[in-house]
Amino acid sequence: MLRAFRSSTLRQVSKRFNSTSVAATYFPQEPTGPVFQTESIPGPKSQELNKELGEVYDNHATYFVVDYFKSLGNYISDADGNKLLDVYCQISSIALGYNNPELIKVAKSEEMINSIVNRPALACFPSTNYKTILEDGLLAAAPPGMDRIWTALSGSDANETAYKAAFMYQHAKLRGDKPFTQEELTSSMENKLPGASDMSILSFDKGFHGRLFGSLSTTRSKAIHKLDIPAFPWPKAPFPKLKYPLSEFETENREEEQGCLYELESIIENSPSKIAAVIVEPVQSEGGDNHATSFFFQGVRDITKKHGILFIVDEVQTGVGASGKMWAHEHWNLSTPPDMVTFSKKFQAAGFYFSNPDLQPKLPYRQFNTWCGDPSKAILAKGIYQEIVKHNLVEKTAKLGDYLYKNLNDIFSKFPQKVSNLRGENFGTFIAWDCQDVDLRNKILLACRERGVNLGGCGDYSIRLRPTLVFEKKHADIFLNILEDVLSKV
Amino acid sequence: MLRAFRSSTLRQVSKRFNSTSVAATYFPQEPTGPVFQTESIPGPKSQELNKELGEVYDNHATYFVVDYFKSLGNYISDADGNKLLDVYCQISSIALGYNNPELIKVAKSEEMINSIVNRPALACFPSTNYKTILEDGLLAAAPPGMDRIWTALSGSDANETAYKAAFMYQHAKLRGDKPFTQEELTSSMENKLPGASDMSILSFDKGFHGRLFGSLSTTRSKAIHKLDIPAFPWPKAPFPKLKYPLSEFETENREEEQGCLYELESIIENSPSKIAAVIVEPVQSEGGDNHATSFFFQGVRDITKKHGILFIVDEVQTGVGASGKMWAHEHWNLSTPPDMVTFSKKFQAAGFYFSNPDLQPKLPYRQFNTWCGDPSKAILAKGIYQEIVKHNLVEKTAKLGDYLYKNLNDIFSKFPQKVSNLRGENFGTFIAWDCQDVDLRNKILLACRERGVNLGGCGDYSIRLRPTLVFEKKHADIFLNILEDVLSKV
Repeated sequence: MLRAFRSSTLRQVSKRFNSTSVAATYFPQEPTGPVFQTESIPGPKSQELNKELGEVYDNHATYFVVDYFKSLGNYISDADGNKLLDVYCQISSIALGYNNPELIKVAKSEEMINSIVNRPALACFPSTNYKTILEDGLLAAAPPGMDRIWTALSGSDANETAYKAAFMYQHAKLRGDKPFTQEELTSSMENKLPGASDMSILSFDKGFHGRLFGSLSTTRSKAIHKLDIPAFPWPKAPFPKLKYPLSEFETENREEEQGCLYELESIIENSPSKIAAVIVEPVQSEGGDNHATSFFFQGVRDITKKHGILFIVDEVQTGVGASGKMWAHEHWNLSTPPDMVTFSKKFQAAGFYFSNPDLQPKLPYRQFNTWCGDPSKAILAKGIYQEIVKHNLVEKTAKLGDYLYKNLNDIFSKFPQKVSNLRGENFGTFIAWDCQDVDLRNKILLACRERGVNLGGCGDYSIRLRPTLVFEKKHADIFLNILEDVLSKV
Repeated sequence: MLRAFRSSTLRQVSKRFNSTSVAATYFPQEPTGPVFQTESIPGPKSQELNKELGEVYDNHATYFVVDYFKSLGNYISDADGNKLLDVYCQISSIALGYNNPELIKVAKSEEMINSIVNRPALACFPSTNYKTILEDGLLAAAPPGMDRIWTALSGSDANETAYKAAFMYQHAKLRGDKPFTQEELTSSMENKLPGASDMSILSFDKGFHGRLFGSLSTTRSKAIHKLDIPAFPWPKAPFPKLKYPLSEFETENREEEQGCLYELESIIENSPSKIAAVIVEPVQSEGGDNHATSFFFQGVRDITKKHGILFIVDEVQTGVGASGKMWAHEHWNLSTPPDMVTFSKKFQAAGFYFSNPDLQPKLPYRQFNTWCGDPSKAILAKGIYQEIVKHNLVEKTAKLGDYLYKNLNDIFSKFPQKVSNLRGENFGTFIAWDCQDVDLRNKILLACRERGVNLGGCGDYSIRLRPTLVFEKKHADIFLNILEDVLSKV
């Protein structure tokens, strides 16, 4: 648990940004600002509970212990009763705020209770209402060209099952209508060719796609995730290192992206074995909120198409509205849709991928496991999606993001030595920036926490914003005041 | 969807086994026997719904579509209103029967609703009540010597995170107190040694440990699971092929097991790189319900101990009472506990492993992901565990299993050409047998379904029983009558 300095006197912050809006809000009972009960955060109760938890569960990464019963809307309550404005939101989850009343209704519904008590093995014994649940929720949210869904249990699981679908698809294409050979059947049981595959998934430098063995092999963000774990010898391509703001450096960025695309095609052409799929995040989140432009992503789409490689977009973190569009890859105006789109977090809920029908294996028990997802999570996702539509939250997030970006830009112009490379213009609240170094980054994170803002880092020295979709101007103003104050003092 | 033959006239079965017990049951409203609404199963509604589902979701493996609202206790209701006695139970899940009233209470509890609506990133923001939830549920069920728990999302996920813990443990032991070297840090990002590991997990022929990339590399049950998927070149050892009943063939079986142990040790001694852990199921379930004796498992424990290899027991299918003990490995009376025990299904709920404290990584973000489990599943598991204890269900399952085994043995003596190798003596309801061939096995499965029993296969030509823990003598009698009738007619 990170230790924070004492800061009671530091909690008086300016009110330069001060929302005058009295528009109706989603959480009328929400606190009007951070609430403090202890000298520093984590307070004594949080520390004590975390120590006790450590006796049975790995607690090395705890920020603070949370009272989820007392958390509300955009405010997370810790065990000591401190209430922090949350712009990290369980690592980019919690789409509709804590204890959202509509989701409580969903959680109390007969449909939900039934799905919890009678967890089905979906691929053998699907429920009478499963198609409706999918159609009224997840599939209604699907991007164009993707009318099939696979339901899994996490972002990692979504990516791994997408990889499996890709391998099966590519081998089926090679095999044609022929059945498996005896040699394939036998060798697969020995983990050997030709039954096991020597194909690969290509990912990008600094990409993050999960932490199970297949997904971790494509994750390239941080060594601490990968050290000591066996990995497949799969290829990695460079991801563009762009200059921000993107609008100011179009020429240089185009050159950088063109270079990366050349390199990608060269890796593909020189690969000793077939690359089944390329996976990419619309914004490399864990790796430092690294952006690329539509030119780059369209290029990746074109190259994969040309070489018969599947194109998987990993929207585990970018998906479901935060970018100002339902799916971040909608910003790209691709000429043809991706082959698969994986997603998870903001649906608080398991993991999924959309695909076109070609990606569905033709035989039973190919893409299969006991649960094949969890209806309770699909029901929750349906509830989240319907609230998003009802309240027009994607568009609102786009506008609020513009307000945040503009004012952060203004604030950061005063502290060019401390913070730079603000990014996420016209990209909703999916905003991030670099700090001078990792020490300063951590100081800023802790100083914000002490002042009542829960914020998260990414990459080596970056900070990312990941508020809810019900984050409003009044919350933005509180955040901006505190951040400006912190930047002036650290 | 398997097609069944019309069978209305076949539904008159004898009543040789006829429970006279009027003891209180868990589900007073449960049907008194199978209920039929359609000529055959799946009926027209089930077929129609499955066809529709196939437009959006992979439905190749569907048995029939289920109305989980109308299912109760040991009876699963299909979309057409047929009610089948369920001895397969969502592939060995559903510990307490469908729509168990105590679990409905759990699902309606404030604790559950809160956990669903506010899904936490547990390793960063654990809830104030998480330790209590674990202690009152899963940890209270822990076998001796295992006071740590890791919470994951499925059996596969539990195994993969256990493997990761094993690799990290073994490398930390080699590394001592030294920090990671620059070469390790750099090479890990390239998926190369020495940062990535060349250690392995050893599994047994016919073992099943899941279907993600790492777990699938240890799965050796069926080619259809493994074909076309990249796999790690990890070693495989022979699993004893025993003769049943075990009590009749002690000498031959001992010889077979001794041979397998010699082979195991030889593989370990000749392995080109370190084996981090050995994983084994107490009964190889998916692979055909293959048993081994305590002698074999004690031998595996001794050999792993001698060579500094971790011993992981995969209780995903055997755990939580069905074997007549809470954990099947308790049958072995091991001299020292396993290092990790993974489990999932009967807790209907995510996946978990128990371990000793040494297996917990010493650094943050080593064993880590966004969710790190799901409190809603831990709460459900707590409810299941408390019901098991309250009603003494493990002991009752042991007794009911003895009744089932004895009578199956009696029935099978009449059909030695059709069924053989009954197994699971003194092993609760975890009972299976072989059929003459795969065709006969499938005929028996379908004929039982037509007569109102939902039954599952395993291995190449075996049938496995996986009833709930609230399966009583009256249910056993209905099942025995139908099975005897089917065997006399197929």
